[in-house]
Amino acid sequence: MLNGFVAAHDGRVRRPDDTDLVVRSDAPVEGKVSVVTGGGSGHEPMHAGYVGSGMLDGAAAGAIFTSPPATEFADLIDEVDNGSGVLAVIKNYEGDIMNFETAIDLVGDADVETVIVDDDVAVSEETDKTGRRGVAGTILVHKIAGAKAAQGASLSEVRKVAERVIENVASMGVALTSCTPPEKGSSTFQLGDEEIELGIGIHGEPGIERTQLDSADEVTEQLAAPVVEDLELSAGDEVAVIVNGLGNTPLGELYVVNRKLDDILSDADVDVYRSLVGEYCTSLDMSGCSITLLELDEELKELLDYPAATPTLTIRE
Amino acid sequence: MLNGFVAAHDGRVRRPDDTDLVVRSDAPVEGKVSVVTGGGSGHEPMHAGYVGSGMLDGAAAGAIFTSPPATEFADLIDEVDNGSGVLAVIKNYEGDIMNFETAIDLVGDADVETVIVDDDVAVSEETDKTGRRGVAGTILVHKIAGAKAAQGASLSEVRKVAERVIENVASMGVALTSCTPPEKGSSTFQLGDEEIELGIGIHGEPGIERTQLDSADEVTEQLAAPVVEDLELSAGDEVAVIVNGLGNTPLGELYVVNRKLDDILSDADVDVYRSLVGEYCTSLDMSGCSITLLELDEELKELLDYPAATPTLTIRE
Repeated sequence: MLNGFVAAHDGRVRRPDDTDLVVRSDAPVEGKVSVVTGGGSGHEPMHAGYVGSGMLDGAAAGAIFTSPPATEFADLIDEVDNGSGVLAVIKNYEGDIMNFETAIDLVGDADVETVIVDDDVAVSEETDKTGRRGVAGTILVHKIAGAKAAQGASLSEVRKVAERVIENVASMGVALTSCTPPEKGSSTFQLGDEEIELGIGIHGEPGIERTQLDSADEVTEQLAAPVVEDLELSAGDEVAVIVNGLGNTPLGELYVVNRKLDDILSDADVDVYRSLVGEYCTSLDMSGCSITLLELDEELKELLDYPAATPTLTIRE
Repeated sequence: MLNGFVAAHDGRVRRPDDTDLVVRSDAPVEGKVSVVTGGGSGHEPMHAGYVGSGMLDGAAAGAIFTSPPATEFADLIDEVDNGSGVLAVIKNYEGDIMNFETAIDLVGDADVETVIVDDDVAVSEETDKTGRRGVAGTILVHKIAGAKAAQGASLSEVRKVAERVIENVASMGVALTSCTPPEKGSSTFQLGDEEIELGIGIHGEPGIERTQLDSADEVTEQLAAPVVEDLELSAGDEVAVIVNGLGNTPLGELYVVNRKLDDILSDADVDVYRSLVGEYCTSLDMSGCSITLLELDEELKELLDYPAATPTLTIRE
């Protein structure tokens, strides 16, 4: 997969020998903080799809739904660090956090800071001791931290803006089917033909409610309400939107969801500043989608608009 | 769907009132030939995803797998034409061709020319009286004709370069599952768990062979061989590649196919100039993929590289 990825985006990214990493071809990029991430595979285009100018300097790929080992994260830091420091954007899963912390010990004197993304409002510390999971909202952390780094900010400034995104981003997903990890060859759980699961995780972790399949409009309301509530959005607020396909929901249906979401936000006098509709953080071949909202301020809007050139996301000057 | 699409790409595209069209916000664009297309829905991001500067001026959306009516095509011509003429890129399906020909009669004095895309090498005039179907290769016709038009070429020049793409582009697809039209709510045909169908059409039209599911490498060889043969590719040739997901094949698996395809072409000393790997012309929730190759010359390379800014495809200056 990684070799096919690098072949497709020849010249812009490279895979360092003997690693499961994808880094910018020009890494280490002098004179800027590096931003990296990593995690299990099976969520493509996350993570390598966001490697490029204005976004990530590199990403580590684990096996399907499995954290990359600490040695991979350590190699990643070595590949990208130019001495200006490295911000790691880690999703809130125990394996990712543990392996990345070990990696920091392995690399010794590199200046590395970490932020933990936990945008999934379906989970809380009461329901899971690890707390909220990191899902599609992570892409906005990549985008905004990457832009801040590209502008020449210090490591502490890049970390702080990433933390502000994390505080202001929330997501909620729904599954219509399970997913099929290739080595297993069968679904990880079962849902009836007319059944959906709200609050599903991107690895098929249990959601908060199984209910009957309803119209796209009603499902969109069920996804949007807890996200809007979590962010305490009110009239006059501005948001970035991701309507994210989990793998097997046709793009046309994601646009149907976006139409209803746009209506819901418009009715609440919440202004949509920018929308991403498509597959950004998938769960193999799962049917379903997630909604992510990020409450914006002037700086976050400017950083969202900052040019980026990655295989998945291009923001033009 | 169209309203959600326009909401997501606010400012760059618009949906004219009382139509199922998507056109550039600034249409009609003065001083250039317009390039349009259209066809049934269910292939998203085709067609509206390719509307934007350097590519299409507008696209007509029919119902799922159903040609837009002639009146829609006629409205499309009216919306985009500035007097410089319109090139319509039509895929080789009877309904699309018939309705577009009627549209030309309806609009009367507009200067309209048509090209018919028939890149699917699984079909021949011997097996189907309509001849080869138009599939994912159509995107390259949109790209290159759109670039030629953006450069200020005449209608006849834009048509000629589109025809050159059509002569030099070939595709072949494989399905692992059928697709599920929403109004039907069930699969259009059945494939066993271990069965695949080579040469499948993007509406689930029968392919040329049902065979056993094999490794990604072997399936890639089965798809690539007839395409390479059709184009009579030989050492030193240069190609553009599309590895296109039909809907429910994870992006990671498409990269696995691309890796093998890259090896096959490299072994034949065929140079890959540019690759697109992702969902470009889908068939709702069908599992499977297609491979498209376009043999390039200097002008086609220049037009492929010409800047474009559409919801799906961005080529930077």
